Amino acid sequence: MTTEGFHVLDEKSLREYIKATPSLASKLGNEVDKLDIKEVGDGNLNFVYIVTASSGSLVIKQAVPYVRLIGESWPMTKERSYFEATALKHQHGLSPKHVPEVYHFDRTMSLIGMRYIEPPHIILRRGLIAGIEYPLLAEHMAEFMANTLFYTSLLYLTTTQHKNAVAEFCANLELCRLTEQVVFSDPYKISEFNRWTSPYLDTDAEAVRKDNILKLEVAELKSKFCEKPQALIHGDLHTSSVMVTQDSTQVIDPEFAFYGPMGFDIGAFLGNLFLAYFAQDGHADQGNDRKSYKVWITDTVSGTWNLFHKIFTSLWDKHKEGPGEAFLYAIYNNAELWELVKQKYMTELFHDSLGFAAAKMIRRIVGVAHVEDFESITDLVKRADCERRALDFAKMLMKKRRNFNTITDVISAAQ
Amino acid sequence: MTTEGFHVLDEKSLREYIKATPSLASKLGNEVDKLDIKEVGDGNLNFVYIVTASSGSLVIKQAVPYVRLIGESWPMTKERSYFEATALKHQHGLSPKHVPEVYHFDRTMSLIGMRYIEPPHIILRRGLIAGIEYPLLAEHMAEFMANTLFYTSLLYLTTTQHKNAVAEFCANLELCRLTEQVVFSDPYKISEFNRWTSPYLDTDAEAVRKDNILKLEVAELKSKFCEKPQALIHGDLHTSSVMVTQDSTQVIDPEFAFYGPMGFDIGAFLGNLFLAYFAQDGHADQGNDRKSYKVWITDTVSGTWNLFHKIFTSLWDKHKEGPGEAFLYAIYNNAELWELVKQKYMTELFHDSLGFAAAKMIRRIVGVAHVEDFESITDLVKRADCERRALDFAKMLMKKRRNFNTITDVISAAQ
Repeated sequence: MTTEGFHVLDEKSLREYIKATPSLASKLGNEVDKLDIKEVGDGNLNFVYIVTASSGSLVIKQAVPYVRLIGESWPMTKERSYFEATALKHQHGLSPKHVPEVYHFDRTMSLIGMRYIEPPHIILRRGLIAGIEYPLLAEHMAEFMANTLFYTSLLYLTTTQHKNAVAEFCANLELCRLTEQVVFSDPYKISEFNRWTSPYLDTDAEAVRKDNILKLEVAELKSKFCEKPQALIHGDLHTSSVMVTQDSTQVIDPEFAFYGPMGFDIGAFLGNLFLAYFAQDGHADQGNDRKSYKVWITDTVSGTWNLFHKIFTSLWDKHKEGPGEAFLYAIYNNAELWELVKQKYMTELFHDSLGFAAAKMIRRIVGVAHVEDFESITDLVKRADCERRALDFAKMLMKKRRNFNTITDVISAAQ
Repeated sequence: MTTEGFHVLDEKSLREYIKATPSLASKLGNEVDKLDIKEVGDGNLNFVYIVTASSGSLVIKQAVPYVRLIGESWPMTKERSYFEATALKHQHGLSPKHVPEVYHFDRTMSLIGMRYIEPPHIILRRGLIAGIEYPLLAEHMAEFMANTLFYTSLLYLTTTQHKNAVAEFCANLELCRLTEQVVFSDPYKISEFNRWTSPYLDTDAEAVRKDNILKLEVAELKSKFCEKPQALIHGDLHTSSVMVTQDSTQVIDPEFAFYGPMGFDIGAFLGNLFLAYFAQDGHADQGNDRKSYKVWITDTVSGTWNLFHKIFTSLWDKHKEGPGEAFLYAIYNNAELWELVKQKYMTELFHDSLGFAAAKMIRRIVGVAHVEDFESITDLVKRADCERRALDFAKMLMKKRRNFNTITDVISAAQ
């Protein structure tokens, strides 16, 4: 927690750091004098270096105790790096095919050394804007979410394990606070940080701030975010936290990880797919009307939820006599009741996910941080039109989420 | 957490301990050579000494690292003493009239020195069995619960304060586990620990274990117990954790305290009042048919909830622009919405409370630990009859709790 011994690295000092750190040097074939180092951090928070040698590569990510984009005037705990490293290691253990390996973590330096996710991997959001289909995306994300959420919940953990883990991640509270503010609060009030495609969405933004029913619903979702430590969630699972190729899906950047509601992760991913969906009309041109791509996106939405449901409940069945203390098999050991239990649990999770999806969509349209899906539509009238349809859908979804029984019904509503 | 330096005191060594501890000796006018010491621990877990001198008195409570009643073969962390002392101090700060003052806490010795709650105070449960009315009980318990629950929730605390407190009390997990087992699990399965008034309730106990809908509902309540850190709850707020006179009400023994659902405390208290209510017919005799006393009990049930509702929402109104981060006033600052928010919150809390009340009643009839209200009815047929009516009411209440809008409706159902 101290800043003693911490200093921000540059290329030169990073080179020395790697030389002195066997767990990193060994990943580069110990060719530490011939390293190619490139700073690529395009995020707002951290420094990210790609380090390559002829026989190996890795990524170094260093958190600094402020928001990089703003500077030292906006402090932000560098301890987020500890939670990111801890979550990465845990998630890699649970879903090794979809989470990069951590080679090294230095808490004093807030520094993670990890696998370089090499080209042709790109950020999923970029792929969605370019109209590229990823046939395995739904399956991979379903696998990632089902495994990381199931195995960190009371469906698998004992109370002892669960409460210890909850306690540890409570300390990642600065990042939880940030989410509370930008997702659940600012979009619903006047805030200097909010922005939207003005003047086209001025009345839409005002309508959000004046919608009593919507504000009642977002309070319930915020309460679940703050007071439902259901599983170790990624905490920021939008489409820029996922890197993809045609046959690989890698989930990165879990610095917002903590014990929260599972639906927050599922909703983040689905909500961002819906944002991509509503942005497509803005990317359509004479060469490509994006109609078939929109079908692929909605298929990916339904595929993700349906496969998640299948894998998650399979894990649950598999471990029904396991250590998890939520539903002791000695109590729930009849077939009819077992089905009832799963149905009830999955229905609530579905409705949570839809609510959080809606919250994540709304905040990207009238809150502080926007998404490139819309931002890259240069015609503002067109952009505002796409955003308005996304916003109207999200508002309806948040209010009516409990009326939806299947993901297909949700997609029909979007169409 | 270490046992180093810990030893179980007896009267002689306690005398030396007090001599050497100014914060205790001073409460006894420093007359440490003329102390009257009496061991009175009638609980199953701890040693309790009443210490008196001519000019003062106090109570010493020492936890031992096992269940006292059983012996060292049933280990139980003595760290519970730390959580009890921490909760007592916090609750005394929030509700000083209804929680005894802690004079001294020694973590190594798991020893609390606190105010002696002097006669004519008796354990509330004894008073309820004797048919004694306590005209201020509802008001006092409402004050205690409203203050301790409101001020430790996100309605008053910041996220930072709340998450830090949640994390600290996660470590009281052994006692949470015990509650999970005896309240939410054992009564719903075959367990060597369960007992009931046999053979009269044999089929009733079996019916509980075979009731799919009931078991579905108790799973939801268990999930809230494990995964809803809403406020610092007492955790064991039955009628033996309350000492009373006609004008004083003192809440003791919060060793099960942790961040959990508020309804668990409210439900524990109301559920135990309902147990007392259903036991009255077993205590009726020719001299006293207990009819008017039953009316007093149900008036106390409704008074407790209605006054709690009033005080709790008043505190909320008072602090609506305060530090609490759950409902930022900048978002919820219109009169209609503010009422909607409170209504929704209080309705959910009411239904939670009814559910937990039911769970606490059921476990006292077919689980391991029974209540003197019923146990003191020596005629087993009569006792079983009282218990069966309580059990049937509790089962209905757990299943139908969401259909009740007022506490009066609940009482009508009990009658």
